[in-house]
Amino acid sequence: MNFITKLNVAWKNNNSLVCVGLDPDPARFPDELKNRIDKIFSFNKAIIDTTHDLVCAFKPQFAHYASCAAEDQLEQTINYIHENYPEIPVILDSKRGDIGSTAEHYAKEAFERYGADSVTVNPYLGQDSVQPFLDYTGKGVLILCRNSNPGSAEFQNLTTNGRPLYQQIAHNVAKKWNDNNNCLLVVGATYPEELGEIRTIVGDMPILVPGIGAQGGDVAAVVKNGCTPDGTGLIVSSSRAILYASSDDDFAQAARDAAMKLRDEINSFRVLQKRFVNE
Amino acid sequence: MNFITKLNVAWKNNNSLVCVGLDPDPARFPDELKNRIDKIFSFNKAIIDTTHDLVCAFKPQFAHYASCAAEDQLEQTINYIHENYPEIPVILDSKRGDIGSTAEHYAKEAFERYGADSVTVNPYLGQDSVQPFLDYTGKGVLILCRNSNPGSAEFQNLTTNGRPLYQQIAHNVAKKWNDNNNCLLVVGATYPEELGEIRTIVGDMPILVPGIGAQGGDVAAVVKNGCTPDGTGLIVSSSRAILYASSDDDFAQAARDAAMKLRDEINSFRVLQKRFVNE
Repeated sequence: MNFITKLNVAWKNNNSLVCVGLDPDPARFPDELKNRIDKIFSFNKAIIDTTHDLVCAFKPQFAHYASCAAEDQLEQTINYIHENYPEIPVILDSKRGDIGSTAEHYAKEAFERYGADSVTVNPYLGQDSVQPFLDYTGKGVLILCRNSNPGSAEFQNLTTNGRPLYQQIAHNVAKKWNDNNNCLLVVGATYPEELGEIRTIVGDMPILVPGIGAQGGDVAAVVKNGCTPDGTGLIVSSSRAILYASSDDDFAQAARDAAMKLRDEINSFRVLQKRFVNE
Repeated sequence: MNFITKLNVAWKNNNSLVCVGLDPDPARFPDELKNRIDKIFSFNKAIIDTTHDLVCAFKPQFAHYASCAAEDQLEQTINYIHENYPEIPVILDSKRGDIGSTAEHYAKEAFERYGADSVTVNPYLGQDSVQPFLDYTGKGVLILCRNSNPGSAEFQNLTTNGRPLYQQIAHNVAKKWNDNNNCLLVVGATYPEELGEIRTIVGDMPILVPGIGAQGGDVAAVVKNGCTPDGTGLIVSSSRAILYASSDDDFAQAARDAAMKLRDEINSFRVLQKRFVNE
């Protein structure tokens, strides 16, 4: 099953737009796992087992594994999801971006070494730098468009061809890069107005939205501006607010509660959104 | 010794602007090492030992290690350079780019896990995404400006504020990001005119120039447009043309010959350049 199909199935089956970001920070683990790099997989497994029926995707963040030489824990995590919850797609969040021959190696890393269903990439080097990823036609490629951090406006909002750069990127991705129908975009929850503008440009293309939770994005505005008319179209990612909802032994149950709360909050606005579209 | 000082010493001591890119491709190794991922370090060691007196830096390209799960070979390679040739700086070419909290993990990966002297980063997410790297004041941060691939013009050459985006980035890096004097830029050898424009904007800031060799950049034009008045300022990177100068057992000697030839070719134009400046 290709990534886009898998995502659509997960949206529907779990009635959820929530993506749990697997950004392990061993210093914040509960006591029995605390500061144990070799327990990252155990921590992730507990989170995955208690949230898999509430999510449309899992998103491991590469830097959290690479900074502590825990590639093995990342491999185990992705394998575990595929083996136990094959209906949930995995987004490897590694924001790769390099020229053609090197990009081929990064695509091989994401899709063959780690077996991810999709990967995040940076568009700054242009289409030919992303093409090696797009050539894996069954995989998803999530292209950075408008990021959630305060400083992202420095270049992303510069006006070019009469519109902000991030809109130019959304336009090129939707109109030129998407021959294989495997492009997605990444747009921060902290800029819901921009999200709405991008939705207008890209039609039904799915959008990954980080920045809910710890970064303060507004759920209502994200759903209102980002959902497609059928009430899907978004992958709303939350990491720290779910993973570290409790620092005690009940962390997995607390994560479930936090994921359910976010799912339900999002769904409450999805209902309004669908009603609005139908009226 | 901080990165910039180390670079200046290597430029002077080896009378060289050449950087050897360590992009291992086991399929192209000589017969006794061929297709052996566990022999990447052995291959690199032979290249390092025969070229260390001809270079100003070594630049391992992360993707070539990550795609085949050879992080251990990358670690051994960097450690070997530090232990045996401590005067030669190491540039980890991994083109990281992510928001603040994640960028901290990537900075830790590059500078603490791998112990690199410097790292390449992508500017698209703005200054706050690069600041965690810049905060390692003794390390170098090489920021992508104008890349060597044909598709890089798609966004990098869009006009914004009356000039191409890559010039805006060069301007911001030189005027706003460089409080710790540890910024460098990356500009492809395939665009020597743009290199000249960027040199005018950034003054003496060192520039990494990939794209010589396999990609076809013109050495004379790069030196003429990119060198600072003292005949330095550039880190001219070549990978495949040096690493795979021979596919036989004489690969290390052939790599030395290729590196020496490039050094001498660059230096022949540096002499002309300095004479031109002095006249």
